[in-house]
Amino acid sequence: MSGLQAFRYGIQVGVLSDRPEHEPVQFMTPHSHTGSFESVEDLTEFAKTCDILTLENEFISSEILKSAQENSGTPIYPAPESFALIENKLIEKQTFKNAGIPVTPYALIENEDTLEAFGEKHGWPYLLKSSKGGYDGYGNETVTNIDEAITAYKNLGGHSGRDIIAEAFVDFTHELAVQVARNETGHVVYPCCETVQEDHICVAVKSPAPVKETIRQKAQELALKATQTIDGKGIFAYEFFLRPNGELLLNESAPRPHNSGHYTIEGCVTSQFENHMRAVMGLPLGSTELRAPAVAMINLLGTDERDAQVDNAHDALATSDGHLHIYGKLDSRAGRKMSHFTLLGEGMDETYRKAQSVTSQIKI
Amino acid sequence: MSGLQAFRYGIQVGVLSDRPEHEPVQFMTPHSHTGSFESVEDLTEFAKTCDILTLENEFISSEILKSAQENSGTPIYPAPESFALIENKLIEKQTFKNAGIPVTPYALIENEDTLEAFGEKHGWPYLLKSSKGGYDGYGNETVTNIDEAITAYKNLGGHSGRDIIAEAFVDFTHELAVQVARNETGHVVYPCCETVQEDHICVAVKSPAPVKETIRQKAQELALKATQTIDGKGIFAYEFFLRPNGELLLNESAPRPHNSGHYTIEGCVTSQFENHMRAVMGLPLGSTELRAPAVAMINLLGTDERDAQVDNAHDALATSDGHLHIYGKLDSRAGRKMSHFTLLGEGMDETYRKAQSVTSQIKI
Repeated sequence: MSGLQAFRYGIQVGVLSDRPEHEPVQFMTPHSHTGSFESVEDLTEFAKTCDILTLENEFISSEILKSAQENSGTPIYPAPESFALIENKLIEKQTFKNAGIPVTPYALIENEDTLEAFGEKHGWPYLLKSSKGGYDGYGNETVTNIDEAITAYKNLGGHSGRDIIAEAFVDFTHELAVQVARNETGHVVYPCCETVQEDHICVAVKSPAPVKETIRQKAQELALKATQTIDGKGIFAYEFFLRPNGELLLNESAPRPHNSGHYTIEGCVTSQFENHMRAVMGLPLGSTELRAPAVAMINLLGTDERDAQVDNAHDALATSDGHLHIYGKLDSRAGRKMSHFTLLGEGMDETYRKAQSVTSQIKI
Repeated sequence: MSGLQAFRYGIQVGVLSDRPEHEPVQFMTPHSHTGSFESVEDLTEFAKTCDILTLENEFISSEILKSAQENSGTPIYPAPESFALIENKLIEKQTFKNAGIPVTPYALIENEDTLEAFGEKHGWPYLLKSSKGGYDGYGNETVTNIDEAITAYKNLGGHSGRDIIAEAFVDFTHELAVQVARNETGHVVYPCCETVQEDHICVAVKSPAPVKETIRQKAQELALKATQTIDGKGIFAYEFFLRPNGELLLNESAPRPHNSGHYTIEGCVTSQFENHMRAVMGLPLGSTELRAPAVAMINLLGTDERDAQVDNAHDALATSDGHLHIYGKLDSRAGRKMSHFTLLGEGMDETYRKAQSVTSQIKI
């Protein structure tokens, strides 16, 4: 979706993918390259064909990015130095904690022996996470006792040299998210939205989040502070837990356009993708104002393993100010993000219910 | 821009161009073909690679389209039968006149001898037009006396078998435009907008048109009637003259997304491109409601023959709810449509002045 915005600015798009199968963006450009994200050479050769390089995922290391930037002379945003501060969940948490941004209690699990101690200190169950490369619940495991913890530690690669961190389960009333775009011209902060999660996958977003205005402002302040802390240039997304006592804890960050901000395409004056493009090109950033009092976004997940196709979308398409996006992935599978639907409305409860209702029959 | 909308629906895009140089859309797809628009075979071979074929210009004949549709089995929208009724300006005027839609006074100029008679009947100056292939003033000449008429007739191809029609100059207070999307599920009509023309080139659009509501409604009714008359499936644009006495005359029609509707990308709930895609795919059509009380669109034309680049766009980008689109054409030349800027606002005069002001320094 960043590519579509680039086209709107008359920019040609090249893409480097590390998969043999077709990515949707590969149907949107004649400049499609395949290479390894672990190869400085592959990335350097690709970077040489570009004026600016940016990311749509973070399955790459900041060191590779840094080397490719040096070797090619092509600037990369977010900068490898910024990315280095958040690519590893341990460093990320330390970075933000040191900046005074509250994070969930965590510890590096150096070996199996510390698994029990974390549970005793912070309570069972807790989360074990691979320090790199996780998303949508992949790379995360919830463990309820020491036996599960030992198994999960192994599954996540703890014995293969991968840093595993433990995170306390915190009780919360809402999961919130804020996107921030920033460059040398300034910064813009998107409204604080709620992300509705099922099985660690975001299934819906409500913007603005149905919480107190002071809470939303606080989340926006923390998100901006986090971006400034890593000297971020580009678009960044931050996910927070809102605790019953009103405290906000930063949970995760992403140095790219994020699913929690897909609603901004129609829901805000300037989408996260447009501000991403503006940010990495050093252009003035656009207004993040909401276009309607209530914006609801529903993620449409694959239900079966099959060739992707969209069935029963009539109600969604026939809904005024409803906006269906289909990603063009060729293969569907259970839980895969295939599409989303955004609805603009006056009141959140009604808008959200309507968005759920008109998309409930869609099979994709 | 139709292609960008197709991508939003997960649709792969192939393109057939008849030019050796690069078209912007060719940077947006790996499926790029070159062929002659006069070759049934070229079009048939291309059509075989597609599920549906549609047009972004009308520099092709309905007969070629019809043969390619039959040979390939790929449906083409707008249908060749609809296109046949408007591709030739003479047939177009007859079609709409017969349907009770007022058109500008016209006559087929069968030979030089009738040039003088038309001027005497309808007054000098008048317009001579090639019956096919004109746009943006190309293929049109204004003639003020018989000598100019004879020269123009020759220049436009009158001696080479091309039908030339004469059109009376009508005095008008505004030029208006309306887009209509239509398919088997129904139709939607866009607001009636004003097109501001200089030297036969549209330089700006104001929506809604600053004329009486009854006039706007009448233009919408005529546009819908015109679409029904040709049994149009797809998106169609109609341009009208508003005469001082309040009479509307249909001036031109186009069976495709049209420059007069570019403002709908941000200015309406559903853009002309999205409804174009929906229409040709047989999907329910989306709301054409305006997103703001006043929407102004400024066409940004090339000023010199040079490699395209965008200079001094800072003010436009820094304007809240201003939206800059750059087409990605590689070469600029004086008068070429390179980009447009849309501004949403509360009052038309202020919005239009601001849109002009913030784009006045842009050089492209």
